[in-house]
Amino acid sequence: MEINEFHINNILKDMEKKDYQGYLLAQFTNVQYISNYKPTSFAFCVIKENPIIYASKMDMEIANKTSTIEVKEFVSFSNMVDELKKDGISNLAIEPSLVYSTYEKFKDSFNINSETFIDTQRQIKTPEEISKIQKATEIAQKAFIDLDILNNTNSENIVALDLDNLMRKYGAENNSFDTIVTSGSNSSLPHAVPQNKSLERPILIDWGAKYQGYCSDNTRTMVYTEKQNEICDIVAEAHDKSIKAIKPGLKCCEIDKVARDIISEYGYGDKYIHSTGHSVGLDIHEIPTFSTRDKTVIEEGMVITVEPGIYLEDNFGVRLEDTISVEKNKGKIIGDLPLIIE
Amino acid sequence: MEINEFHINNILKDMEKKDYQGYLLAQFTNVQYISNYKPTSFAFCVIKENPIIYASKMDMEIANKTSTIEVKEFVSFSNMVDELKKDGISNLAIEPSLVYSTYEKFKDSFNINSETFIDTQRQIKTPEEISKIQKATEIAQKAFIDLDILNNTNSENIVALDLDNLMRKYGAENNSFDTIVTSGSNSSLPHAVPQNKSLERPILIDWGAKYQGYCSDNTRTMVYTEKQNEICDIVAEAHDKSIKAIKPGLKCCEIDKVARDIISEYGYGDKYIHSTGHSVGLDIHEIPTFSTRDKTVIEEGMVITVEPGIYLEDNFGVRLEDTISVEKNKGKIIGDLPLIIE
Repeated sequence: MEINEFHINNILKDMEKKDYQGYLLAQFTNVQYISNYKPTSFAFCVIKENPIIYASKMDMEIANKTSTIEVKEFVSFSNMVDELKKDGISNLAIEPSLVYSTYEKFKDSFNINSETFIDTQRQIKTPEEISKIQKATEIAQKAFIDLDILNNTNSENIVALDLDNLMRKYGAENNSFDTIVTSGSNSSLPHAVPQNKSLERPILIDWGAKYQGYCSDNTRTMVYTEKQNEICDIVAEAHDKSIKAIKPGLKCCEIDKVARDIISEYGYGDKYIHSTGHSVGLDIHEIPTFSTRDKTVIEEGMVITVEPGIYLEDNFGVRLEDTISVEKNKGKIIGDLPLIIE
Repeated sequence: MEINEFHINNILKDMEKKDYQGYLLAQFTNVQYISNYKPTSFAFCVIKENPIIYASKMDMEIANKTSTIEVKEFVSFSNMVDELKKDGISNLAIEPSLVYSTYEKFKDSFNINSETFIDTQRQIKTPEEISKIQKATEIAQKAFIDLDILNNTNSENIVALDLDNLMRKYGAENNSFDTIVTSGSNSSLPHAVPQNKSLERPILIDWGAKYQGYCSDNTRTMVYTEKQNEICDIVAEAHDKSIKAIKPGLKCCEIDKVARDIISEYGYGDKYIHSTGHSVGLDIHEIPTFSTRDKTVIEEGMVITVEPGIYLEDNFGVRLEDTISVEKNKGKIIGDLPLIIE
């Protein structure tokens, strides 16, 4: 059985349990996951007994060439509604990320609820998916080493550009998100934008490559002063201990708690202003997350980041991040870049 | 009056006419347009008598530093619902692009409808916005010239990378979308992904720079054979005549018709597989569009692309695109790159 067919069958089982006859997806990565076809314009995929994609006219050639499921040209929403009704659909599930203006086209014709069937399916990666994330990570880490960051005298935005170029040189199809290179007091902004200014200290770099659709995600912070080293040690302890705590059967929030408790014990709890991690795959942010409220049970095959940080406003910030593949009994760091760069 | 305040006041007037007390926005560019704060994590902006942004904890520092309206830390959706109710909101408008899972958090507490107030406001650019689009276009076109595409012997993906780097060198903060460099038979795919293969002929490049948040958008196709030249002449005629037709007071679909009729007269109507143009601004695709169904009346201050194309499957494609600023009596091409590169 093709892998897409396997995913579709699992989702059909979930749908059946709640008496849905159709499941509407429009998020590009959801369509790609189901069919291999990556939309470049709008597309609507409906999972049902005979799954179908309504693609835009301009995408018909690429969709026909790449999709593993049937593709039709999208004519209009009312045409789609008619066809889905004729197909016996009355209860229609939608992906949670569907935009309201699309939902609106269907809401009067079907009983609609949003369901996370697709997200739940996507959270367990196949060995093939994990190897693509591994390859993306290899590319990204090799590029980072080439930067020779400790001897690099360029401005933040040039360092970011160089890193992007090195990743593409080593085979990335793209970055997995806008590369963060920030330094000095700006490093207290978790998602700072690289500036046209010389690197100050510390230097925080958060970057990832995309390989065959799959993302990598890492962060390293290069610290200098005694205070920066002290903070970095705390973050490293939170990083290491929460990774060691990962185990199928535990809840995601329990991993967040390990990191958060360590940082709090040192008195920096209110300076830890984000979650401990998020899943990665075709998207850079997927569920489940290592956050205070996520009670999802950890399972083998999940791929989740661990990225504790401490942010001292107007002073500096430190974040350390690795991406973890959940194995049978433990979490395993993907990639082999040292945590502390010296 | 600050420009953001001006925009907010206009939107408040639209809201009042339909008896809305609040208008919920979460799309990053919408929040940025209203407040100057560009979210790096989730954020919810509510336009009301006293507009407010609920920002994520990790964005509080950057939001406080950049926002022109009040910022509060987001605690929970139920807290937001309570506060908005206490503020006297019962009829709540939402942006059309709001994702369903967010809509769901509000739907049982308010009378909700999606409204395009924000999109309508954004479609009329201020002189300052237009000059940013002009600057983005200058950067992008200067970079394109540096490519020396007619003598360039690199592979598609390297040409794309070089173009991206040149744009950043000339001051772009980023591309406005993934650069398209495609050649030979792949050029019949309107949104082809650059491949690791030598440039064939024709070469189609669709690219844009982002400058201070604003996007540029251009396409050029370099043709070689007699047949390619013949098709290119038709597309150029459609391009020129539809730009000449632009005039405040006409409907957007009338401009699409000019381009479509010309291409159809030459017998290629079924090979023109997309719309004639889309607005650009903070987003690369905004409304209104030059499409068969868009009846929006053209107004001074709109900035819209004109990009006719003919796509011969498995053979080649030609597209020519400029971005047009609508002036008092006519459309004006932004930038000065020749349409035919020779």
